[in-house]
Amino acid sequence: MSEAAATSAAGGKQPRKALVVVNTGNGKGKTTAALGVLFRAWGRGYNVCMLQFIKSTTSNYGETRAAKNIGIEMISLGGGFTWLSKDIEKDKALARELWDRCREKIGSGEYDVVVLDEFTYPLAYEWLPVAEVVEFLKQRPARTHVIITGRDAPQALIDYADLVTEMREVKHPFQQGLKAQPGIEF
Amino acid sequence: MSEAAATSAAGGKQPRKALVVVNTGNGKGKTTAALGVLFRAWGRGYNVCMLQFIKSTTSNYGETRAAKNIGIEMISLGGGFTWLSKDIEKDKALARELWDRCREKIGSGEYDVVVLDEFTYPLAYEWLPVAEVVEFLKQRPARTHVIITGRDAPQALIDYADLVTEMREVKHPFQQGLKAQPGIEF
Repeated sequence: MSEAAATSAAGGKQPRKALVVVNTGNGKGKTTAALGVLFRAWGRGYNVCMLQFIKSTTSNYGETRAAKNIGIEMISLGGGFTWLSKDIEKDKALARELWDRCREKIGSGEYDVVVLDEFTYPLAYEWLPVAEVVEFLKQRPARTHVIITGRDAPQALIDYADLVTEMREVKHPFQQGLKAQPGIEF
Repeated sequence: MSEAAATSAAGGKQPRKALVVVNTGNGKGKTTAALGVLFRAWGRGYNVCMLQFIKSTTSNYGETRAAKNIGIEMISLGGGFTWLSKDIEKDKALARELWDRCREKIGSGEYDVVVLDEFTYPLAYEWLPVAEVVEFLKQRPARTHVIITGRDAPQALIDYADLVTEMREVKHPFQQGLKAQPGIEF
């Protein structure tokens, strides 16, 4: 759909507004739903990418390969859970370095959708000030939707976001002693 | 990953077990997360398809095109919300016809992942007996993961499923008077 058609579909008055979307909660599907959105947007010919804050492991083997196959940009920032260095200043410096790369991608104005995968962690640990992140999002290029995933999204981010969904775990196979299944869970 | 490798990764003892996954709740991301799983599984070379119980509209324009582009099978059953015919017997007959097509796909044993998108509706409206559906799922080919999406998943389905997530709406842009945005929401 063209910009004009989108405007028309919205009643001819409202310009397209890029959204800030947050997928949070303790359940499955936060990253997977973001991936589904990227795939859908890619189907419309949009320019999309995903920046991953959690170090690449077998846990994103399937999607990384799928994305690579069709040319969706996936950037592993190599941080995430490996950050627990017990050196808070080092963690903060790394968080800032990774955030700079995100700002660069979003700020370039070249993307329709940018996913910041597991980005709630540096915020929840207060390695990055939420207020600074929200301020940057407010100033971002008008075309760029931003999707942020991860547990424990800070309230200030939820307050600013347009669309927030909590993925709540009702039942998980680990409870029944089953291991994660390839292709389904990773 | 081969069957053998999957078994090995799971500790060498536990055979691969196909899961029944339910994405329910009033929030966004139920279908989108299922789509993300299909995309991920496709990335592993798995054989996947999605059967859609809601009549195809612009709401799945993006994903249908994306899936078609890469050869993921998407089958619109053409039922869904158009069922509200005020003729309960007609609704039941259509539900059974669509369910027969699902059983055929799952029962073929040719798929690693089959998504029954918005399938909770015929169950919630009691056009199909949940007990019959659960019985069929118990007997299905061992390789086939089944993902069922939609609001108001019946308790008997939740009780049988391996992995259940509730997508809970925390904040939606409609609340702020914003229209759905192409590429992000559909």
